[in-house]
Amino acid sequence: MSEYELYYWPGIQGRGEFVRLALEAAGVPYRDVARLPEGKDGLKPMMYFLSGKAIERAPFAAPFLKAGGLLIGQTANILLFLGSRHDLAPADEAGRLWANQLQHTLADFVDEIHDTHHPIASGLYYEDQLEEAKRRSKDFLKARAPKYLRYFERILASKEAGPAHLIGDRLTYPDLSLFQIISGLRYAFPRAMSALEKELPLTVALHDWVKAHPKIAAYLASPRRVPFNEQGIFRHYPELDSPV
Amino acid sequence: MSEYELYYWPGIQGRGEFVRLALEAAGVPYRDVARLPEGKDGLKPMMYFLSGKAIERAPFAAPFLKAGGLLIGQTANILLFLGSRHDLAPADEAGRLWANQLQHTLADFVDEIHDTHHPIASGLYYEDQLEEAKRRSKDFLKARAPKYLRYFERILASKEAGPAHLIGDRLTYPDLSLFQIISGLRYAFPRAMSALEKELPLTVALHDWVKAHPKIAAYLASPRRVPFNEQGIFRHYPELDSPV
Repeated sequence: MSEYELYYWPGIQGRGEFVRLALEAAGVPYRDVARLPEGKDGLKPMMYFLSGKAIERAPFAAPFLKAGGLLIGQTANILLFLGSRHDLAPADEAGRLWANQLQHTLADFVDEIHDTHHPIASGLYYEDQLEEAKRRSKDFLKARAPKYLRYFERILASKEAGPAHLIGDRLTYPDLSLFQIISGLRYAFPRAMSALEKELPLTVALHDWVKAHPKIAAYLASPRRVPFNEQGIFRHYPELDSPV
Repeated sequence: MSEYELYYWPGIQGRGEFVRLALEAAGVPYRDVARLPEGKDGLKPMMYFLSGKAIERAPFAAPFLKAGGLLIGQTANILLFLGSRHDLAPADEAGRLWANQLQHTLADFVDEIHDTHHPIASGLYYEDQLEEAKRRSKDFLKARAPKYLRYFERILASKEAGPAHLIGDRLTYPDLSLFQIISGLRYAFPRAMSALEKELPLTVALHDWVKAHPKIAAYLASPRRVPFNEQGIFRHYPELDSPV
């Protein structure tokens, strides 16, 4: 198999992080192209693919993954691909669709998390939509975050195979994404999350399991993991973090 | 094959419409359960599945599709399933991933269209977020809608197989979704769209092709098609429709 090339904005975890976690858990080598020194690598080749010049199947946005002759865009689509290639998803059709369905719901959650700080326009500064961000975050923490989090907790609780993983009794890629979301929400909304987590014992246990997974633990301790910061999806703005 | 059952909120096209268009183009029978008279059908069985009681793989939200023993949620995931079952997607892995990738980008576009009238909270009335909606719509029509629409126009223009369809030289499910988006944008933002469409000849031609497709034309003329209205994704609020 040829080496994977991941293309994503340097300096943030963003949506690229969901792909990184899958690549790391699979233990496959990859080049994080836009984070490598400018020249053959760096931002330039990423912008070339995004420009769509001379490419028939150009991605709309990063992240995208180059896998041999394939150029695959959209986070959940990349995970669909990696999940089947590296045994991070069930092999049967029903299980594969269920993993993809869970990932879509996780992606919807991520979109709503992003919009807490950018409810008006992703092209405007946070400061220029601060009042709207406060209003949206309040609704998010009161209504939307609990709805999503309780859903995943309920999925874990209702499983015949036990509550350790979202699917079956082993790691699949939605587990990794749920881990990332819990980590990110803790970073962004520590006050609200400390209250919300009280009713999420299974979700927290899954988060802890993923965090302690040898390959993931090694990744998190490495320089390959970009720290959380205020340019990504999960931003810690204390004025948006209200007690639930 | 057993009959399909579609579950979606009655009274709106919403995200269910992307599934309906695929079922109609495939020419397969389906029961639009929540739109049937209350009793065995109607909203009650849909709410049962959404409650997650006694179901291991419950959907987070509608639409979802019952296909024999499978219960499939998330619009793009349902289309991934129907696309491969009914020849509405390429059969090879690269083509299947590309169709899914396009569908994800179309779904992101739909999310942003929805948020023009609900930028703060989907649980609040439009009137209670009117000022924010005006601000978000202005940015949407100036920056986001042109970005998405030019992307799909460029995809059509750059194809070796010609510009009639998004993939290859025949109908696939992303064509149906792009048709629905153009129809909906024309309904919601007629002033802005009349300006934007001038640079979208290929997209408009594809819209017209889908509209004239015998199965789709019959569907659009039937009572199975819910009319556009101000409860769905595409809402005509003249105060949000500015000249671009």
